[in-house]
Amino acid sequence: MKLQNDLFLRAARGEQIERYPVWLMRQAGRILPEYRAVRAKLSGFKELVETPAFASEVTIQPVDLLGVDAAIIFSDILVVPEAMGLTYEMIEQKGPWFEKTIRTREQLSFIDRNIDVYDRLSYVMEAIRITKRDLAGRVPLIGFAGAPWTILCYMVEGKGSKTFSESRKMLYTQPDLAHELLQEITDVTISYLKAQIEAGADALQLFDSWAGILGDDQYEEFGVKYIRQITEAISTVPFTVFSKGAIGSLPVLAKLPCTTLGIDWNMSMDVARSLVHETKTLQGNLDPCVLYGSNELIELETRKLLKSFKSQRHIVNLGHGVYPDIDPEKVKVFINTVKSYEI
Amino acid sequence: MKLQNDLFLRAARGEQIERYPVWLMRQAGRILPEYRAVRAKLSGFKELVETPAFASEVTIQPVDLLGVDAAIIFSDILVVPEAMGLTYEMIEQKGPWFEKTIRTREQLSFIDRNIDVYDRLSYVMEAIRITKRDLAGRVPLIGFAGAPWTILCYMVEGKGSKTFSESRKMLYTQPDLAHELLQEITDVTISYLKAQIEAGADALQLFDSWAGILGDDQYEEFGVKYIRQITEAISTVPFTVFSKGAIGSLPVLAKLPCTTLGIDWNMSMDVARSLVHETKTLQGNLDPCVLYGSNELIELETRKLLKSFKSQRHIVNLGHGVYPDIDPEKVKVFINTVKSYEI
Repeated sequence: MKLQNDLFLRAARGEQIERYPVWLMRQAGRILPEYRAVRAKLSGFKELVETPAFASEVTIQPVDLLGVDAAIIFSDILVVPEAMGLTYEMIEQKGPWFEKTIRTREQLSFIDRNIDVYDRLSYVMEAIRITKRDLAGRVPLIGFAGAPWTILCYMVEGKGSKTFSESRKMLYTQPDLAHELLQEITDVTISYLKAQIEAGADALQLFDSWAGILGDDQYEEFGVKYIRQITEAISTVPFTVFSKGAIGSLPVLAKLPCTTLGIDWNMSMDVARSLVHETKTLQGNLDPCVLYGSNELIELETRKLLKSFKSQRHIVNLGHGVYPDIDPEKVKVFINTVKSYEI
Repeated sequence: MKLQNDLFLRAARGEQIERYPVWLMRQAGRILPEYRAVRAKLSGFKELVETPAFASEVTIQPVDLLGVDAAIIFSDILVVPEAMGLTYEMIEQKGPWFEKTIRTREQLSFIDRNIDVYDRLSYVMEAIRITKRDLAGRVPLIGFAGAPWTILCYMVEGKGSKTFSESRKMLYTQPDLAHELLQEITDVTISYLKAQIEAGADALQLFDSWAGILGDDQYEEFGVKYIRQITEAISTVPFTVFSKGAIGSLPVLAKLPCTTLGIDWNMSMDVARSLVHETKTLQGNLDPCVLYGSNELIELETRKLLKSFKSQRHIVNLGHGVYPDIDPEKVKVFINTVKSYEI
């Protein structure tokens, strides 16, 4: 089916656009009362992720309610470690918790090898198929996965962490084990993302949430190396790599065979562009806290961001996921400011 | 009293040194069994902070046990908000918790104005005096405080946070309130640091733990502006500014009238030096996770760091506080590698 609004895809590929496309990380989520209504019917976050009809419903909500230029499938990066054999719980107010963790070579046996992603993650592909049908070509649908380094962090720590020191410790004390685990995650992720494309995803994004806790050399060895494998294996759709906090690695990321790099709010778009040639699209990076401000402030800061763009190779987003207590009306001010801005 | 080992002070001032000085952030703390023994006798962390004899004892332990080239007074950056009227509890495994927070102009009344730091923080100055006496000139003693932005974060959030979104929200929605609060904190901090010098501190360090969560422009307006006031007001002793994670702000920090900039482990010392002229000493920045490695790895990584130095203007440290589960024997390997390295 031909897309009625393919601005997001054109901007990613560096094609001509009439205006900048805009969407928000975590747009399908707690900011919308309509999302909370669906969520309230269910036992928890994971039931929502694992039930295609509901996941699809909340995926489409921001397209209808906010007018974004792309949908992103409602899911969780942690479905991959779970498919690999490490089940997790999502504890309200606290975050994910894994019963089993991998810190030794023996514990690598917790990982199921040669898994079939079509089987274990069928619910994600089903959610993508339903969403594509119900979107009916209005906007593109983005699929996603966590980057291997971030997934390793959860497998090793078993939960969130301030320092991720157990994971970083492994890089020094058992680098071979880390590489073996990263390669396993990478192989599964490639299969998983290919399956998402087959199911209908028009574009992909890789989230490396904990990129910024490594020094640049280490991130290149244990992070970028595996992202490169993934982006080399998947070249048929626009692909965004979002390595949060990895400011110093931007020149290395700029050489990946992906179309788009996500930029967080800590770095000005000017500086980001000085490190990334016009052969890549940049996605981001309004500070999510701007949306706590008045409508005037939101318009002002959004226009400031737009004016800093030196070319058409931009997709507008926040520099981080939208915070759950943001008023959806404020999100609309942001979106409408982008939509009314003349290139 | 003349110092027997003033390497730290000379390196900070850019004077000739025979070898690089070395110390560790959080060197007085849980890594040492001798610290845990003192701590076990007391009701909690705060009793240790508030009892000069004990605070002094644990301050000196790493000088005796590890052989560091500087002591840093055992205290907490949160004694300043407490002195200003916001008491806090330190909850085991969780971190600090403030009953009262400041998010509105009305709540600014929770702050006591014109406080006397000699009165409210007398226990810190007493700990410094005892420590200076008992150090008997072996190594310099570093005093410290939190930078105003980081202190504001705790006053606004009331605890740690992943995003510090309430504090960042204030910068957009109530910038005048933020500036007023930052100025109050700055004024108290200047008095407090001057009192520390009078009590005997040979050098000072300002910790801006949450510098990295702001964009560069915002950090300059709400962070660096107040650090500048403090460094301008205090010029009699070597002064280190450690703005953790503020990679993009390093060129601005390099213009502050301080002697030393702290560098975290995410940035290579090469890149840091390319942004900071030889008129400043750089302090750091071994990844604290290296100390989980073998002795050989620690020596290798420490030597790699030392070899990257292009001048004598370096003080060796970790790029972050030492993690509590590190073996003190590993710390010694790090320290001895630095001490045996020929400039």
